[in-house]
Amino acid sequence: MGRSQTKTEKMVGLTQVMENEAFMAFASYATIILSKMMFMSTATAFYRLTRKVFANPEDCAGFGKGENAKKYLRTDDRVERVRRAHLNDLENIVPFLGIGLLYSLSGPDLSTAILHFRIFVGARIYHTIAYLTPLPQPNRALAFFVGYGVTLSMAYRLLKGRLYL
Amino acid sequence: MGRSQTKTEKMVGLTQVMENEAFMAFASYATIILSKMMFMSTATAFYRLTRKVFANPEDCAGFGKGENAKKYLRTDDRVERVRRAHLNDLENIVPFLGIGLLYSLSGPDLSTAILHFRIFVGARIYHTIAYLTPLPQPNRALAFFVGYGVTLSMAYRLLKGRLYL
Amino acid sequence: MGRSQTKTEKMVGLTQVMENEAFMAFASYATIILSKMMFMSTATAFYRLTRKVFANPEDCAGFGKGENAKKYLRTDDRVERVRRAHLNDLENIVPFLGIGLLYSLSGPDLSTAILHFRIFVGARIYHTIAYLTPLPQPNRALAFFVGYGVTLSMAYRLLKGRLYL
Repeated sequence: MGRSQTKTEKMVGLTQVMENEAFMAFASYATIILSKMMFMSTATAFYRLTRKVFANPEDCAGFGKGENAKKYLRTDDRVERVRRAHLNDLENIVPFLGIGLLYSLSGPDLSTAILHFRIFVGARIYHTIAYLTPLPQPNRALAFFVGYGVTLSMAYRLLKGRLYL
Repeated sequence: MGRSQTKTEKMVGLTQVMENEAFMAFASYATIILSKMMFMSTATAFYRLTRKVFANPEDCAGFGKGENAKKYLRTDDRVERVRRAHLNDLENIVPFLGIGLLYSLSGPDLSTAILHFRIFVGARIYHTIAYLTPLPQPNRALAFFVGYGVTLSMAYRLLKGRLYL
Repeated sequence: MGRSQTKTEKMVGLTQVMENEAFMAFASYATIILSKMMFMSTATAFYRLTRKVFANPEDCAGFGKGENAKKYLRTDDRVERVRRAHLNDLENIVPFLGIGLLYSLSGPDLSTAILHFRIFVGARIYHTIAYLTPLPQPNRALAFFVGYGVTLSMAYRLLKGRLYL
């Protein structure tokens, strides 16, 4: 009985949260940009395997024994570049997730909210392209600051007049 | 008066969110895996102190003065291994948190949702064991890809037919 | 019609979530500490530009051609220090965000919850000051462990008697 009652109440709560259009939009864009970030792991793995560049002895044990395998324990420009892009993603997507979630629940104007999410996702995808190609500066710097500005704009709108300290 | 009124309304909102069983399950598993990730900081500190391997001059000031202390500013295989495991956790647990939160609120089938959370948490714990022991490959690679697949599966279920762009 | 109906329902849902005082307080403190973390990116960029220390060839192309530019591809104690502080922020703020969000929704005592958030934010700001100045140890270590303890305390309160596995 406890379970079925809970089921009904759950539906009510879900209707409310999932019919919040700003939240639904945030959920979609957040999932897209997180999937993009996860792709960076695959890119790192791809370059490590094709270029035979490893960080752990056990990873290149299949390429030879002892000293022969150790030569693959090295760093590589290409791999380090992907790793920097990945870390930059983490540093910027984590604030977007936290601030964007709270912003989307704070009753923002729907079209303003969607504009924020779209620009952020576009800027971060362009940042990855600019980093991995690599495109000449200031392509990557601009992509970075656009995403940064979007997050700050959401933080400002969230705190303005609603600060609860 | 404002406070007590709010209190009542809060109870209503909380009843709905906290009786959402998929969300409750997500909350439990997310807390467990984040606590595991926090343990990595302790592991790094443990190896830094027992092996006297530091990144900052002020950290080893207690071990000697001037040049004598500087010799502890070095890197160490064991410490770097823990730090790589920690960074890999961050890179994988952040998408799980974001996508899992939204997935758990999207009204998933409860047993499917719990299965996702359980496999992810198990895979990441095994990943840490495989990284720190270290176990021979493909132990760590498999643990990584299982966790990765679980997150992608939640992202797919979340976006399927619900995309709001 | 669908849109306006949703609008009304949204208001109901938002009233409940946004009148949850513990959640409102969490939103404020989380936004503050995430904004602080974002400041670390600016600090890194500032030191990279003023000290001419870059990680990517395209970043220092404006300072000269070919070999002349390559000499700026180097590491620098100051830049590495900011980057370590930034990574430490990520490693600690991500668990705070995840566990704190769930904790704030779990119906905690309001003054206890605010105390947790305040101490965490204060400890992390002090951690950054101690790292960047740098202050002698154990300033930074204490700041770290205070923030760490706050997050563990929230995790404990969240899991205690509510575990849903």
